Amino acid sequence: MKIALFPGSFDPITIAHVDIIKRSVSLFDKIVIGVGSNSNKNALLSPETRIQMMEAVFADEPRIEVTSYEGLTINYCKEIGALYMLRGIRTVSDFEYEKAIAQMNHELEPSIESIFILSNPGYSSISSTIVRDILRHHGDISKFVPKEALRFL
Amino acid sequence: MKIALFPGSFDPITIAHVDIIKRSVSLFDKIVIGVGSNSNKNALLSPETRIQMMEAVFADEPRIEVTSYEGLTINYCKEIGALYMLRGIRTVSDFEYEKAIAQMNHELEPSIESIFILSNPGYSSISSTIVRDILRHHGDISKFVPKEALRFL
Amino acid sequence: MKIALFPGSFDPITIAHVDIIKRSVSLFDKIVIGVGSNSNKNALLSPETRIQMMEAVFADEPRIEVTSYEGLTINYCKEIGALYMLRGIRTVSDFEYEKAIAQMNHELEPSIESIFILSNPGYSSISSTIVRDILRHHGDISKFVPKEALRFL
Amino acid sequence: MKIALFPGSFDPITIAHVDIIKRSVSLFDKIVIGVGSNSNKNALLSPETRIQMMEAVFADEPRIEVTSYEGLTINYCKEIGALYMLRGIRTVSDFEYEKAIAQMNHELEPSIESIFILSNPGYSSISSTIVRDILRHHGDISKFVPKEALRFL
Amino acid sequence: MKIALFPGSFDPITIAHVDIIKRSVSLFDKIVIGVGSNSNKNALLSPETRIQMMEAVFADEPRIEVTSYEGLTINYCKEIGALYMLRGIRTVSDFEYEKAIAQMNHELEPSIESIFILSNPGYSSISSTIVRDILRHHGDISKFVPKEALRFL
Amino acid sequence: MKIALFPGSFDPITIAHVDIIKRSVSLFDKIVIGVGSNSNKNALLSPETRIQMMEAVFADEPRIEVTSYEGLTINYCKEIGALYMLRGIRTVSDFEYEKAIAQMNHELEPSIESIFILSNPGYSSISSTIVRDILRHHGDISKFVPKEALRFL
Repeated sequence: MKIALFPGSFDPITIAHVDIIKRSVSLFDKIVIGVGSNSNKNALLSPETRIQMMEAVFADEPRIEVTSYEGLTINYCKEIGALYMLRGIRTVSDFEYEKAIAQMNHELEPSIESIFILSNPGYSSISSTIVRDILRHHGDISKFVPKEALRFL
Repeated sequence: MKIALFPGSFDPITIAHVDIIKRSVSLFDKIVIGVGSNSNKNALLSPETRIQMMEAVFADEPRIEVTSYEGLTINYCKEIGALYMLRGIRTVSDFEYEKAIAQMNHELEPSIESIFILSNPGYSSISSTIVRDILRHHGDISKFVPKEALRFL
Repeated sequence: MKIALFPGSFDPITIAHVDIIKRSVSLFDKIVIGVGSNSNKNALLSPETRIQMMEAVFADEPRIEVTSYEGLTINYCKEIGALYMLRGIRTVSDFEYEKAIAQMNHELEPSIESIFILSNPGYSSISSTIVRDILRHHGDISKFVPKEALRFL
Repeated sequence: MKIALFPGSFDPITIAHVDIIKRSVSLFDKIVIGVGSNSNKNALLSPETRIQMMEAVFADEPRIEVTSYEGLTINYCKEIGALYMLRGIRTVSDFEYEKAIAQMNHELEPSIESIFILSNPGYSSISSTIVRDILRHHGDISKFVPKEALRFL
Repeated sequence: MKIALFPGSFDPITIAHVDIIKRSVSLFDKIVIGVGSNSNKNALLSPETRIQMMEAVFADEPRIEVTSYEGLTINYCKEIGALYMLRGIRTVSDFEYEKAIAQMNHELEPSIESIFILSNPGYSSISSTIVRDILRHHGDISKFVPKEALRFL
Repeated sequence: MKIALFPGSFDPITIAHVDIIKRSVSLFDKIVIGVGSNSNKNALLSPETRIQMMEAVFADEPRIEVTSYEGLTINYCKEIGALYMLRGIRTVSDFEYEKAIAQMNHELEPSIESIFILSNPGYSSISSTIVRDILRHHGDISKFVPKEALRFL
């Protein structure tokens, strides 16, 4: 069974995240979306709210599971039997960061592969950081967050 | 009337900011320099001091106005009737950040255009961050800050 | 009178070029689209065809003129009285290339300013190079080239 | 059946290519390595030699097939029923190039996904271009090319 | 006497730092490794521990000295008679940051040159930041930190 | 004796090259400027002219020698006893290219170190390519080429 972990903060989930997941779901038997404990300080939303939002978004996708985890991401992969770590890349800065993380993970655990999907052009400037900034200033984020998630914001 | 907003922290203004503004002033009827409220926490200078510094620097430029604003930058553009947002770019990292912001702003308000000027080579490593760092260590910042602004530091 | 030169190869013009021009036309009194002589060797289309394509695309825009030129771009700016050079930037590689050219031009002629517009996300991977490659392999380029220009291809 | 196309020039194949393929073979039922016709002018090796080299390297991998193709890569994917295009990324420049190609391919054929694997650190500076350069100067390329491929050079 | 300062946080020292220092030691008569006071807030290790770790690592290298310093790095260079500042570069982001710092330092003190060594491929994703992150999650950092330094962690 | 090779095309030498060499001459006992044979096709100037230009520029620097060489640069280092290869870096693209070359050279010959100097801001957009382009269009290159070299152009 091919299991992939899609780790992140998802504070909040954006349509760019949804796009990456929907485009790669056929490649795996199960995708586990994992909210990392690292991403909890200074967060806008509690991990529970983030999980509920994503469960609402993926309610019709039986192959997608939403959880949270503690500790090193690579260890959580081993714990859930995920041989693949799925990541989206939007920009050159993302790429350099993801490359360093993927290479360190490969050193720590060579049996787990990082798989990358590039954002579609229409989504490449959407980030949770910018969405949080718009929210804090009471701007309209409905174009950037999946509609099933809007009621949690 | 062609109005441009030049938003930023200006903590403090540098000769690189002055260069961008002077080079683009002929393109617009008015440039509003806006100190964003985002940039106030952990700032070295109060917004009032930053505004006074810039008013001293541009005292002879009737087409340049200095203000501060709250909320989303794109909303402030609409409030003051600015159809253009003016930004300087120094480095590749600046470019990627500005690109994401400009594209999100275009989604939120397609009628407002972001216009970019690239720093001149002599100014491309001058940033407010590095100037603040030199100030904190009591180094000499007189080469990097316009002379009219020095007395506020 | 504010005149801008928009120099390039336009071999062929794409919807990304059209987007840049339409978004900046309000900033100037006239935009001259200039097909540079540099870009003629190994070109797919003759300079004449490229000019005809662009004249068809901008037939309804009285402020846009299409020409070709020989020699240094900065000299052609002076010849036509353009105080601004307009350029679009899509990627980090574009940015570095444009930065070097803009800085050299500023050395050669400080009175002429380079003004940059960033591509909208939907257009940021469209380049004449990729369009030519699709054309050579008889692929469908109708999504990437303005419809008025298609009959020339 | 999950089929991926791994397109390229492979002039010659390097240990960096082998690494990408071996690390992703478990993700698919079949990987087709395709030597593109684009990559034939100014090549060091004929397409036939390149195919023979790779067949020697992957002789023990029943899930890997080596071919050449003409025309647009995305069309060849459709022809062989590949729903995935597999690509390795080493550097920021690679990333920007691959991103533009992947986004154009997504426009042309949204049903085919581009999947990326990042080079391992030990392989990230190995490119066919540098290997060809060493070969032309009669340097030692045995560290950079898989040993089964050396006798073809 | 050719003295170089190698400034940094070293929180903790990694094998990538050791590699840079060992590869450049022949170029200078003395290399002073300086733990900057800037890097003390939010640090994992005290400056004293960091110095002890590095003294253990370089116990057999008479030309390497380990210290800490306050204030601007460029001023500390002058204080110890270092005409060279030595820096390692791993990534494009490192490069842009180092470039800005080196250029500002050159403005402040043109007699001091910044000398750069690029990380070897096997080390290019190892950073103190990632090592601290693994430590906080009780992962195994023995592959990334020199063995003489491990007992301090 | 510390010898460094500064390899390149120097077609023609620019003030940016001169800046790199003058700033690093104190670090070595001898710097050999080597015109590579790779860089001869499509060149503007013959290797002989390029050597004469540089000999004129560095006539007063006894520690600088100008030559040309054939074959792999790393082999020429060994031939002349250079344990260091000196390179200037201006841009992110330069950085990635130099990084790949330096890492391959390190694989081929670990005893030879590549040492990098970053261009000063005033020189970071000056390249031989742009200078050749200005020359071909009969523009004024006197700001970009050392005055001793001008009479050869």
